[in-house]
Amino acid sequence: MVKIDPGRLMADLKRLRSFGATGPGVVRLSLSPVDLAAREWLVGRMTEAGLDARIDGVGTVFGRSRNSGPALVIGSHTDTQPTGGWLDGAMGVMYGLEIARALAENDATRHLAVDVASWIDEEGTFSGFLGSRSFIGEPVDESIGSAANRQGERLADVLAAAGLAGRPRARFEAGRQVAYLEPHIEQGGRLEAIGKAIGVVTTIVGLRDVRVRFTGQRNHAGTTPMAIRRDAGAALVAFIARMNDAFKPLVDADTVWTVGRIDLEPGSMSVVPGMADMYLQFRDANAARLDAMEQRLVELAREFNAQNAVGVKLQTLDDPVEPVTMDATLAGHIARAAEAVAPGQWLRMPSGAAHDAQLIARCMPACMMFVPSIGGVSHDFIEDTADEHIVLGCQVAATAAASILLEASAQRS
Amino acid sequence: MVKIDPGRLMADLKRLRSFGATGPGVVRLSLSPVDLAAREWLVGRMTEAGLDARIDGVGTVFGRSRNSGPALVIGSHTDTQPTGGWLDGAMGVMYGLEIARALAENDATRHLAVDVASWIDEEGTFSGFLGSRSFIGEPVDESIGSAANRQGERLADVLAAAGLAGRPRARFEAGRQVAYLEPHIEQGGRLEAIGKAIGVVTTIVGLRDVRVRFTGQRNHAGTTPMAIRRDAGAALVAFIARMNDAFKPLVDADTVWTVGRIDLEPGSMSVVPGMADMYLQFRDANAARLDAMEQRLVELAREFNAQNAVGVKLQTLDDPVEPVTMDATLAGHIARAAEAVAPGQWLRMPSGAAHDAQLIARCMPACMMFVPSIGGVSHDFIEDTADEHIVLGCQVAATAAASILLEASAQRS
Repeated sequence: MVKIDPGRLMADLKRLRSFGATGPGVVRLSLSPVDLAAREWLVGRMTEAGLDARIDGVGTVFGRSRNSGPALVIGSHTDTQPTGGWLDGAMGVMYGLEIARALAENDATRHLAVDVASWIDEEGTFSGFLGSRSFIGEPVDESIGSAANRQGERLADVLAAAGLAGRPRARFEAGRQVAYLEPHIEQGGRLEAIGKAIGVVTTIVGLRDVRVRFTGQRNHAGTTPMAIRRDAGAALVAFIARMNDAFKPLVDADTVWTVGRIDLEPGSMSVVPGMADMYLQFRDANAARLDAMEQRLVELAREFNAQNAVGVKLQTLDDPVEPVTMDATLAGHIARAAEAVAPGQWLRMPSGAAHDAQLIARCMPACMMFVPSIGGVSHDFIEDTADEHIVLGCQVAATAAASILLEASAQRS
Repeated sequence: MVKIDPGRLMADLKRLRSFGATGPGVVRLSLSPVDLAAREWLVGRMTEAGLDARIDGVGTVFGRSRNSGPALVIGSHTDTQPTGGWLDGAMGVMYGLEIARALAENDATRHLAVDVASWIDEEGTFSGFLGSRSFIGEPVDESIGSAANRQGERLADVLAAAGLAGRPRARFEAGRQVAYLEPHIEQGGRLEAIGKAIGVVTTIVGLRDVRVRFTGQRNHAGTTPMAIRRDAGAALVAFIARMNDAFKPLVDADTVWTVGRIDLEPGSMSVVPGMADMYLQFRDANAARLDAMEQRLVELAREFNAQNAVGVKLQTLDDPVEPVTMDATLAGHIARAAEAVAPGQWLRMPSGAAHDAQLIARCMPACMMFVPSIGGVSHDFIEDTADEHIVLGCQVAATAAASILLEASAQRS
């Protein structure tokens, strides 16, 4: 059986953590100086591992195996949330690197082809899932032309300044690349709660991102009577209450919706806000339910506009992400590998979080596996996973990778 | 009668506008580079007008008359809101400068003493009303030690960097300074609505600034079921609805309350907010009502904490500003000046906005007068007042200033 090197894996993970380390967490926003430095480092490590590696024209790091196919792509993302954890995304990429090395060190598997990817901007600093969207052939040039981060830096400018704008972009190689594996931390508390070490992912929920903008009249907070105000912030608060009520008959216990950000303009204590934005995200495994929620939101906005002096307007952000079922055959390889490495310590489960895998699944069979998140915490500086689970997960993924590729090779020959 | 120079007044106002001009508005936050440049310019203009002028140890520009007392202080502020208008505060300071010059040019009034002040930070970029609080002898060193702007720059550091930290601070001169006059734009639509040109202010409403902080648990917006979330942002929205209901039985039609700013942490679409802040301000002419509202807020927070998994904590920002009655004798001088200059074109009215005058009133008799705001708009780039009203207001203020000082001189001799 292929054996990973736990010390080498952990050392590389810790080195990657040092790029943007902030207390126990990591701040490594897509294409920030520290993210670009991490990408250069990653290219170096991939090259040392024998891969043909580079940063592509959108910022994705892609390390291509020099072996002939069929190839397994193992990947995730190394960018983080504004206050992110050290493992979210990063762990899956470092698994890929370690698995490429481990397979190359074993006579039975050194001929197998593992490509390793760190897809750019999974977290949406500029445009969510940009790297995986570009890889599967979505037309991303419009996103690149229009996207900007919260500081107002335009994606096109940032790519140009980094010297990436003109480079070729990594694209799916039909025929050669036959499967995609994305190992990841769970980001929830289910594995920990039932004492399991490995999650074999069955489905990934879909999501919608919507900005809801309220436009009223900015005014002095002392001289403008309540009765004649057109307070955009007060309208936003009233709208959220209505929305919560309106969603209740449409959802089930697994549906989630979140207002993660609110901006009042101009944002001063003594000024009645003239404009207010809320950023809403909702997720579900059922595409029809997501459509129903979006439709209800449109109706609510129409009703609100008819009844209020403050106007409301919806803007869909990014393309909708549809729920995706993982490939059952690949999931079977992971399940058998988990049973071989950690008997009884695994289960099948859905993913409540979105992942690049749901985009990659559009062009080839894709699968995911999880390791436990301590306390279920993620997108936070204190996000963590026990070292033994990190190592165990990599061994399961390596075993599954070898199994997937040996079967694919056998079918081809 | 004393005659102001309309051309000189308007030219100086327009020159001051150029410091921080942004479209039709002005961005001149306290102690920003452009605000400091404006203060240096103002010192120069005051010096040319014969005043003994300097920037003091907190940033206030004070131009002291070289004449013996009794002295009238005329002032307001030249700092602006984050997106401010060109007249708010600035007009009153330039009136003071023009009146000092006009009195010096007239044989009957050249012996009279007018001091001119631009009080620092009326708008609260760091610590609201800092200049007037310092002038009246409030202990402001604690504010200076702890205050910071939204970018996290500490007031003490900014004063030190500007070379101001060690300078003497302008202080009330008992015996010499006998009255304070603050001319200002109305910042509301009342004068315009009834076709009057001058408002003689009777009272200034008081206000309270409170930050309400909600502390929950940051979590992934996809993997954390609604039922177990401790969403600080959702708690904030629920709290505002309860607060609006709770205030209703306590208030009258003139009471106002405003949530001007909301911050969700970390402020990302795909993260359940772990912390949320709302900035609440409420104003009323009745101190007992302000106390009742504050007390109700404390009770609401206690109830909320008992019932919710998200904690709430109130923090009073700055000291409360109590409602203040303007000096009736001084108001009489303004009313007579208005009737002389613009017969029938004035009325007595309260101020819904807070002003430095309500602090200065603690150490000497104080009064205010208003000119109309077009459309009632202020704290906005499009804030404006007709040139004829600006000029008329200055003539009224100059006439009143001469009248106040001639009476004070007569009483003293």
